[in-house]
Formats: sequence, structure tokens, C-alpha cells
Amino acid sequence: MSERFVLALAGGVGGGKFARGLTAVLPPDELAVVVNTADDFLHLGLHVCPDIDSVLYAIADLNDTERGWGHAGETWNFMDTLRRLGAADWFQLGDRDLATHVLRTEALAAGQSLSEVTVMLAERMGIKHTVAPMTDHAVRSIVETDEGALAFQDYFVRRQCQPAFRGVAFQNIASATASAALGEALKTATAILIAPSNPFVSIDPILSVPDVRDSIRRSHAPVVAVSPIVGGAAIKGPLAKMMRELGLEPSTLEVARHYGALANGWIIDASDRDSLPTLEAMGFRVLVTNTIMRNTEDKARLAREALDFALELPQQPLR
Amino acid sequence: MSERFVLALAGGVGGGKFARGLTAVLPPDELAVVVNTADDFLHLGLHVCPDIDSVLYAIADLNDTERGWGHAGETWNFMDTLRRLGAADWFQLGDRDLATHVLRTEALAAGQSLSEVTVMLAERMGIKHTVAPMTDHAVRSIVETDEGALAFQDYFVRRQCQPAFRGVAFQNIASATASAALGEALKTATAILIAPSNPFVSIDPILSVPDVRDSIRRSHAPVVAVSPIVGGAAIKGPLAKMMRELGLEPSTLEVARHYGALANGWIIDASDRDSLPTLEAMGFRVLVTNTIMRNTEDKARLAREALDFALELPQQPLR
Repeated sequence: MSERFVLALAGGVGGGKFARGLTAVLPPDELAVVVNTADDFLHLGLHVCPDIDSVLYAIADLNDTERGWGHAGETWNFMDTLRRLGAADWFQLGDRDLATHVLRTEALAAGQSLSEVTVMLAERMGIKHTVAPMTDHAVRSIVETDEGALAFQDYFVRRQCQPAFRGVAFQNIASATASAALGEALKTATAILIAPSNPFVSIDPILSVPDVRDSIRRSHAPVVAVSPIVGGAAIKGPLAKMMRELGLEPSTLEVARHYGALANGWIIDASDRDSLPTLEAMGFRVLVTNTIMRNTEDKARLAREALDFALELPQQPLR
Repeated sequence: MSERFVLALAGGVGGGKFARGLTAVLPPDELAVVVNTADDFLHLGLHVCPDIDSVLYAIADLNDTERGWGHAGETWNFMDTLRRLGAADWFQLGDRDLATHVLRTEALAAGQSLSEVTVMLAERMGIKHTVAPMTDHAVRSIVETDEGALAFQDYFVRRQCQPAFRGVAFQNIASATASAALGEALKTATAILIAPSNPFVSIDPILSVPDVRDSIRRSHAPVVAVSPIVGGAAIKGPLAKMMRELGLEPSTLEVARHYGALANGWIIDASDRDSLPTLEAMGFRVLVTNTIMRNTEDKARLAREALDFALELPQQPLR
């Protein structure tokens, strides 16, 4: 057993970029990337895990870096045919992406757990590092909006996040248990990193799995979060809009208030340097750097900085 | 209710071509195309119906006429990705074709019968004529070969019909019942046409559904078969090879002997004119014409000839 062990909590695209950096600087036995599954859904009978796939594709360098999501070299003839057949076409399933959904759906139907299926897919993609769902249970985000409650993908994709965000509930969370990989990593982690993902719909689901938040609080591992807000905006996705709709300023400070004492350290972008004094006054250790990840070098550099920063933080007493 | 009603029994590619011709010359309320489903199989969790799809694509003009099977304008990026992931790639699933399989699998999982699903798919493809499976039960061809018993697609696609054909059994046939469309058509048909499909693995399964063969025997409708053998060879597929492996000469005569008294009339290709005297001596009425269907005009002409020929035959006593 290696002495250093890093647990990274990740959502989709931002989580995938950060995870890609971590796999570049950590050997496979020193990292577990645990991924949000509350935006998973059954679509056309296929079990789709958007965040797990974003992370797998990013780590395996199979992700489309131009479009920012999905599979590289993607084509859309399945979608085109669905459309001609008058079937639901609001959720884009690329021809290559479909291979993942079909293999996953088949394996789940054969009785494998989502953890087992994720190991199988990671292996098939040549991934040596641990990638795991937060839980094998079907936890689902239900978004409260000014137009009522919406299943996550209805809000996020079908409605393009147009309805005003009022909050989110995680269906089935009370009966869920952490995946084996998450449970194990919570025990052995010497550092816990929170990827620059959406706190409300990507990270909170992971933290809300029973015992996860408490295990992190009890852990002696320092917890370092990378801010998903850069210069008052989210790099990608609806976070800034969601924060404004909650009456919050889209800022690193507000995200830091949201996680509260769960985090010890924050990594913020140089463009948010103004937040430094307030964050430090709130009791956080802060690293100011360039957090925008445009290429693999950016990702590896940020991962190394996050790692060095986290491992230099003091072991934590009970949070 | 129209006075004329045609029941066509069809397998895959040859059945599709012949069905396409029939839809060109018959209004929707005068035709039911009933299709073999004994080569259906579950592949990667998807419910694939090769013969139904061949017939649907052919009638909707969605079939690839160059390759001779599958969907027009097909691409193979799903397959390419499956292959890269090291998954089973012996059965070709095109990106466009997948739309059919995914919609079918979803609807079956939601509790629809294969008949209902086939109606749904036909409607989505703009098909007005009745296309129905022979049964809603899971009847499956098991091919006896010199290497043992093989599931149909294992024999047909995975092993490319290499093992020597010894016969075929239809799993679950005893407990199967004819689909509603087949049952109804058997009662009302004024002509029954057997498409130029493989007698052993495409037409025999339909005839073997309990009561189907007897209903045809009891029917007063003339039964006309289009020979699947032209000039001692099958137009497509392994029929000639299978017949040789059974010790039979690949000829219209042997196919006529196989169906026996079930058929009243035979439509044979001009290149097989030599068979005419023997067929007539066997008691069959015979139409000699060009049975090779290269384009829609060929298909419509053959369909019209088959129809005129069948409807001129006398009503039949008990066969």
C-alpha cells in the first residue's frame, strides 16, 4: 500500500479535465476518482452516465476537445435516423458514444453493479487508474425550478437550464450507500481533492451519500477544492446562472461559503486574486494559480500544484 | 373489407424485395407481409430482428441496394468504437440501423409485443401496409451442423455458414402461437404467396408455427411460391450450399419437393425453364418469367405477375 492516496470528487467536464491531470501525475495505485451519478438516466432504454463518461473519455483521451463534451471523432447518424423516425432527439447520443451506453446497459442488465461496469469500461479504454461511481444505487437529481420539479436531464439538456434554479433534491439518497471504491478511499485518503465541478449538482450529490460528508469530516486528510468559478463566471455550464437565481453572487467566495468547513484549502484562479484576503480571513489556506485547463500540460500542472498544496497542508483535526 | 387479400410469407433480403414489389401493386388493405422471426436474437442487449428489418427497410426504400442488406447511407462508427473497446464485433450493427434496434428494444422492455413494436416501426418508416412477425413468441432457429448445434446467427454470421448444414430445429415452436396478423390473414387470404426466401430457415419457421401449415392446407386460397433458386444457385445467401450439404441438388425441383403439396403454383426463372415439364408432371401450375429483382420496376412486375398468376389459379380443395 502506497503512503500517498488521493481521492478526487468529480462531476462531468470540469471533473474530467482535472481527473486527466491527476492521472498524468499520480500512479494508478495512488488515486481514486469518484464520480457523481445523480445525473445518470435511462434514455431510450439505455443507461446513460454523463459524468462517468466525461471522466472516462477525458482520462483515456477519447474526449472531444473542440466541442468540449462527448467522444472524439463523433458522428451523428444514429441521431439523424432517430429524428427521421420521429423519435426523441433532445438528448444527443453520438454513434461512438453509443458503444459505451450499449455495453453498460447490457452489463447492468446481466446483473453487474455500476461499479463493476465502470471498471469494465475503464479497462476497455485502457485506463489504469480507479474511476468509480459515488454509489451503485440509483440516486437521481430532481431540480426545483420556477416551473416546478424537473428530472435533471430534463432541466439540463431538454430545457437547456432555462427554468430558474431553486434547488435540487437527490432522489433515493437516504437509502444509498457509498460505492466500495468511495468507502475505501475515504478510509485511506491522505488528500481529498474537489474538482472544479458544479457544487450543487455534481459535488453535493457525492457529499450527500450517507456517511460521506461525515467520513470526510472525520478524515485527517486535508480537503482542497478547486474553484469552479473564474472571474465571476463558470468555465462551462450553468453554475453562474444557478448561483444568481439562488440570489448568490457567482464567485469563489460564495462557493467556499457553500462547502464551508468541509474544505481546508482553496485553489483559485489568478483572476480571482481579490478573494484571497477574505478566503484567508475565513480560515482557508489558499493557492492562487492559473486554473484554466486548455490542454494536457495545463491539466497536469494544475494537478501537481493541487497535490503539492494539499500534501503540504497540515493533517486535519475533526472538521 | 376488400375481396382480394394477399398473405405473403417472407424471410429477409429476398422476402424484402418481393414484399417491396407487392406494396407497389397492392393497396395497404389488401396485403399482409408476415415475416420469419426465428433468426431474431439478443445481441449486446439489443433485440435484433434481421428479417423484419430487411422487409421494413425494403418496403420503406431505406435499404442499401449496393451492399444488399442493412440501412441505406449506413456508417460504422459504433462498430469501430466497439472494436476499439475489444467488444464483440462479429455482428455488424450500423449507426443508422441501431436506431431501429434501440427503439425496438425499448418498446419491448416497456411491455409491447413484437407485433405492436413492428407496427410502431413500420408507421415511423411511413409504411402503410401490414408487416407482422410470424409470432410474438421467442422462436429461435438452432442449426444442426457437422460441428454440432449452433444458434442461427452463430451459424449464419459468426461462422459465415461454414459448418455443413444438417438441419434446423425451431426452439420454442411448440408453445408459440401465430401473431394476430398472421392468424387473421390465414382466415381472409384469397392468395398466399411464398417469397423467394430460404425454405429451411426463413419459410419453414413460419409454416412450423402451430396451426399455420394446417390453416394453409385448409385454406381455399391458392398458394404460389417464387423459387429462391435461379439457374442452380441461390440469388443470395447459403441456400445452394445448404441443399448440397443435405444431399440435394440446388434446384427449383428440390425446393418444390420440399414444400410438396402445400403449394399449388410455382414461379420459376426463365433460366430454369427445363424444370417446367417435371413441375407440371408433379401437379403444379407453373409461371415462367424473369424472377431476378434488380430494381423497383423488376419487383413490381414480378409482384403483379405473381398476383395475376395466383388469382387465376382455381380455389383449392383441402391440400
